[in-house]
Amino acid sequence: MKIPVGILGATGAVGQRFVQLLADHPWFEIAELAASDRSAGKPYREACTWRLPGAPSEAVGATPVTTCEGPFRSKVLFSGLDSSVAGDVEAALAGQGYAVISNARNHRMDPDVPLLIPEVNPEHLEALTVQRRRTGGGYIVTNPNCSVVGLAMALAPLHRAFGVKEVAVATLQSLSGAGYPGVASLDVSDNVLPYIGGGEEEKIEKEPRRILGRFDGKSFVPAGFAVSASVHRVPVSDGHTMALFVRLERKASAAEAARALAEFRGEPQERRLPSAPCRPIHVLEAPDRPQPRLDRDREGGMAVSVGRVREDGTFDLKLEALVHNTIRGAAGAAILNGELLQARGLLS
Amino acid sequence: MKIPVGILGATGAVGQRFVQLLADHPWFEIAELAASDRSAGKPYREACTWRLPGAPSEAVGATPVTTCEGPFRSKVLFSGLDSSVAGDVEAALAGQGYAVISNARNHRMDPDVPLLIPEVNPEHLEALTVQRRRTGGGYIVTNPNCSVVGLAMALAPLHRAFGVKEVAVATLQSLSGAGYPGVASLDVSDNVLPYIGGGEEEKIEKEPRRILGRFDGKSFVPAGFAVSASVHRVPVSDGHTMALFVRLERKASAAEAARALAEFRGEPQERRLPSAPCRPIHVLEAPDRPQPRLDRDREGGMAVSVGRVREDGTFDLKLEALVHNTIRGAAGAAILNGELLQARGLLS
Amino acid sequence: MKIPVGILGATGAVGQRFVQLLADHPWFEIAELAASDRSAGKPYREACTWRLPGAPSEAVGATPVTTCEGPFRSKVLFSGLDSSVAGDVEAALAGQGYAVISNARNHRMDPDVPLLIPEVNPEHLEALTVQRRRTGGGYIVTNPNCSVVGLAMALAPLHRAFGVKEVAVATLQSLSGAGYPGVASLDVSDNVLPYIGGGEEEKIEKEPRRILGRFDGKSFVPAGFAVSASVHRVPVSDGHTMALFVRLERKASAAEAARALAEFRGEPQERRLPSAPCRPIHVLEAPDRPQPRLDRDREGGMAVSVGRVREDGTFDLKLEALVHNTIRGAAGAAILNGELLQARGLLS
Amino acid sequence: MKIPVGILGATGAVGQRFVQLLADHPWFEIAELAASDRSAGKPYREACTWRLPGAPSEAVGATPVTTCEGPFRSKVLFSGLDSSVAGDVEAALAGQGYAVISNARNHRMDPDVPLLIPEVNPEHLEALTVQRRRTGGGYIVTNPNCSVVGLAMALAPLHRAFGVKEVAVATLQSLSGAGYPGVASLDVSDNVLPYIGGGEEEKIEKEPRRILGRFDGKSFVPAGFAVSASVHRVPVSDGHTMALFVRLERKASAAEAARALAEFRGEPQERRLPSAPCRPIHVLEAPDRPQPRLDRDREGGMAVSVGRVREDGTFDLKLEALVHNTIRGAAGAAILNGELLQARGLLS
Repeated sequence: MKIPVGILGATGAVGQRFVQLLADHPWFEIAELAASDRSAGKPYREACTWRLPGAPSEAVGATPVTTCEGPFRSKVLFSGLDSSVAGDVEAALAGQGYAVISNARNHRMDPDVPLLIPEVNPEHLEALTVQRRRTGGGYIVTNPNCSVVGLAMALAPLHRAFGVKEVAVATLQSLSGAGYPGVASLDVSDNVLPYIGGGEEEKIEKEPRRILGRFDGKSFVPAGFAVSASVHRVPVSDGHTMALFVRLERKASAAEAARALAEFRGEPQERRLPSAPCRPIHVLEAPDRPQPRLDRDREGGMAVSVGRVREDGTFDLKLEALVHNTIRGAAGAAILNGELLQARGLLS
Repeated sequence: MKIPVGILGATGAVGQRFVQLLADHPWFEIAELAASDRSAGKPYREACTWRLPGAPSEAVGATPVTTCEGPFRSKVLFSGLDSSVAGDVEAALAGQGYAVISNARNHRMDPDVPLLIPEVNPEHLEALTVQRRRTGGGYIVTNPNCSVVGLAMALAPLHRAFGVKEVAVATLQSLSGAGYPGVASLDVSDNVLPYIGGGEEEKIEKEPRRILGRFDGKSFVPAGFAVSASVHRVPVSDGHTMALFVRLERKASAAEAARALAEFRGEPQERRLPSAPCRPIHVLEAPDRPQPRLDRDREGGMAVSVGRVREDGTFDLKLEALVHNTIRGAAGAAILNGELLQARGLLS
Repeated sequence: MKIPVGILGATGAVGQRFVQLLADHPWFEIAELAASDRSAGKPYREACTWRLPGAPSEAVGATPVTTCEGPFRSKVLFSGLDSSVAGDVEAALAGQGYAVISNARNHRMDPDVPLLIPEVNPEHLEALTVQRRRTGGGYIVTNPNCSVVGLAMALAPLHRAFGVKEVAVATLQSLSGAGYPGVASLDVSDNVLPYIGGGEEEKIEKEPRRILGRFDGKSFVPAGFAVSASVHRVPVSDGHTMALFVRLERKASAAEAARALAEFRGEPQERRLPSAPCRPIHVLEAPDRPQPRLDRDREGGMAVSVGRVREDGTFDLKLEALVHNTIRGAAGAAILNGELLQARGLLS
Repeated sequence: MKIPVGILGATGAVGQRFVQLLADHPWFEIAELAASDRSAGKPYREACTWRLPGAPSEAVGATPVTTCEGPFRSKVLFSGLDSSVAGDVEAALAGQGYAVISNARNHRMDPDVPLLIPEVNPEHLEALTVQRRRTGGGYIVTNPNCSVVGLAMALAPLHRAFGVKEVAVATLQSLSGAGYPGVASLDVSDNVLPYIGGGEEEKIEKEPRRILGRFDGKSFVPAGFAVSASVHRVPVSDGHTMALFVRLERKASAAEAARALAEFRGEPQERRLPSAPCRPIHVLEAPDRPQPRLDRDREGGMAVSVGRVREDGTFDLKLEALVHNTIRGAAGAAILNGELLQARGLLS
């Protein structure tokens, strides 16, 4: 008996990834698909212009789309809602008792909402105790911004082993990160855009500190290091690349850093969660990797790739990190969060 | 009466830019075209597969290509030679009395060779006195690496006004920076390459310090700040974009920094050299600029564009810089060097 | 004294090209800029998100945008209006006595509206006599669809010399042909779209027959040949490429066909109109030309490039044609129409 | 017990696809990897710069590369050799008794060599009787040019049902079709190349007639229709798109044509060969399909996608076809040929 789940924002870019990734999920089964009022009532295949390779199953295609107001038969809702509506909708549903596992940014920094990467900060789920007291039982769990997943996963083992003091990060983000229709093709044809709206740099500077910080029983205490970000949109379909300049508390050789990264494991690996990559971080040795087209799909898009780990005379370390922004950086992240919640008995 | 000049490496990517930019030059006239032995003897139009829009003039197309050994009728030689051969060829020609104005990297760090950006360090030409004593009269003057021109020009006014202490720079470099055939299309289709060979990062870390340093009468004393670089190749035809994180000696507001950049002028502007941009640095206010496709051709590709000048809580300043890598970053840089030499009476 | 002109739809993609191409026009001067009600009242620089390299002049930037209803001081109006509104607006303005020189498709097939390519069918202006009788003095003159300009110009000399019987044409059209925001970048990243909406294939099949037909004093009689089109959107910023398969009434060798194309001239060349290319068709001999990036800007984007003219065992001829879709295929086409009207005394 | 096979040209682009597609093949097992003398002796992982996502298995990576001269333990050799060497090497190996299943063009038109698409012309294997008499037992079987596989598969059901009389085809071919390094990125950045060397158009015009013709016991009699091709390289990583204009012997409605295409099946489907697609041709109804990025991977890249099947006033039918050029158009095609040979008992 699989757990029935609903998808909020099911027709959008992240929603389609949820549909794709949950298609043959061993634990979860798509029971409900919710989207805007405009789509409600239509079968999914008509409500949705499918933009991924392949197609949803017959059953999913025939499922009638509902609104996001509920009620839902499913107690578990994955949210790919746009941030323009996610705030209120998710809060209302949590208030009605649902487990809302969200990719939206709205509640990420709420004082009792876990901003979760299962390999990095599963102990932040403790905040649910506080949150559920507030809501009466339902809750919201969020995953980070698509770039931040890659950044925080790359920083976590370095922070644990050597202490991160300061990070400068320049991103080269893919087109799918902007959703659909997103960036106009003319804007990015033979071009780079040195800007991403919606507070992208602020999110990249704040979220990793929350994720690598701790929950003190009442609120989150951010990690002590500083992050400075400079973001770019590049003409690549999927996969965010990041150049990291890192100052450490304790010196580390490139080999030591690479080893800490490669050996990084967490609760999803111990528990063998269905979507967990065997190795959360793939450390690549070729001098010209990671590359989005060649490396974004490692372990089904759930592994972060790291390369060019090198010592630096100015900073201590430089490295490149790559994350599949719509899988590990969005829908796949939320699904792994759902799996951890289930494994810990928090979905029932 | 224009000054006859020769172009070394005339059939290559940089050589073609020399031919294009010198086509109607008010001071210089293409008299000789030199390339590899394979091309020698053929008319330029046959020796060269022209890869820029437009075409060379009839006269240039009919000019027979010579080898790079000389002798040349022209006393002034612009070199677009590949670094695999430039070292020896240029040294030999300087030894024979020619003024070699080179884009190649080989002699850039020689103790008596100016690494010149006319707006930034024209006083480095003093090193020619030492050099000419050594060679007997001929000399080599070099321009920086294509990224470094943009970086050093953006740093120069900041360094003068506020003192630069530390710089992290991530580059998004265009395809033409790799010459021809350069990067295989498959490697960069829907992709980013986080690596450029030939010591690109080392050049970006060293050359700015030399340029912003001083010549003490005997040798060059580099500027005291540190640069750390992380380079990327992106699918853009022309124009290198750079994200800069800058620590300063003295705090500067974004407005003060922008003003210092926008007001920056140098000897080329004072002397109104033919290829000098009116404003060496264009400070753009739109939040999403500079962009390669829209901004690389400002002032004929000779102006550097800067945008997103902003204060930073971690570093002091962040900004984006853009340089047309084959114009201001290569052939145009060398031509401006030639113009400064002529204006100072050093070509006769 | 230049002729004051207005631009309808001045803030759109075609409107921006009008502003750019009319910037230093020897005969016309931008006096009025009209756009939607949303823009009206704002200075042009604020109403318009400029998306071409460079920027409009200070004077143009400061010009307040008006609505498209008029009245206008200018008697000559260039229209870059979207087809969703162009039909009524242009008809109304012609009814008020203005000369409307339009790039929109709405009135192209009207029985008394010239669909004009000055080199090909200037005699179609005779229809203005009929049209002005109807309107009372004002009139509409249109230019063809962006692909059709290139197609009809390539067919014209072949039709005159050898008689065109049948044409199959496959197009590879650029992104700017879809306006702005046009095609979503995700749709065309690492992709080709074998479809363009808005009746693109129908226009390509019908308009060339009208253009190469004749006006019999009352109505237009289309040329007798058939055209079949298959259209594609490709990831190229500007420049529509077309593969033509042509059956002729009288056999022609590739050399004869190439000569007919290369020697083609028309009234704009005889009258030396300011925007007229010296050679309307550039016949390229290199086996791999024309190419959008290298050839679209020939003669300021006003020349059509043709290459690979070859005999065919199945059809009679095959060739490739290229047109800069927003210059010769849109704004530049309309401006050349305006110049012909002025030269013939039809603007006063 | 799997059949051991060797791969000729194993380090090249097609060779890497062979390695990838044969990785878990139920019938075949990679036993030998052969390449140029330069690679011979090295383990595959060192000899080969792997350019596909993922990586070869440990076992394959450790396999020492041999030269292509043999002798080989495997009796079955898949050849991804470059045409500059394939002619002699393959002939020699067939002479030594090997079954050479080749993707190279060299022997495709030999009078007793099958040019095979298992769904279309399995009866051409009869020519092996003649060929083996000549060689003494070994033989060569070839698959068509990458574009031709898609073209011939799309034409086959139409030809059977309605008789094909004449075809004009314009191709939009991907970068991987040129091998590695293939097309320089600068040549195809923001560009289209209307030319492909190596006799591409001639192959597209000749091979389909051979494939859809018959073997009369002694030699091949080509089908009676004519094909005219015009080829283009476009900036797409994988997947050749083709626009077809088709004249038929007997009229067919779009619906009849679509049905013939959708219902097309052949021997690989009857025999359920491991690499056979369930439906060789996917007929897509959305007006803007097929698209390379969304449709090239249907059925593991082994299905051809067809769309926009429409009646035409000039020709009888127009349609778009898409084939994954390195899978169904190259390595996958050869593997399916191998499977048919095995199923028919021709590999032992």
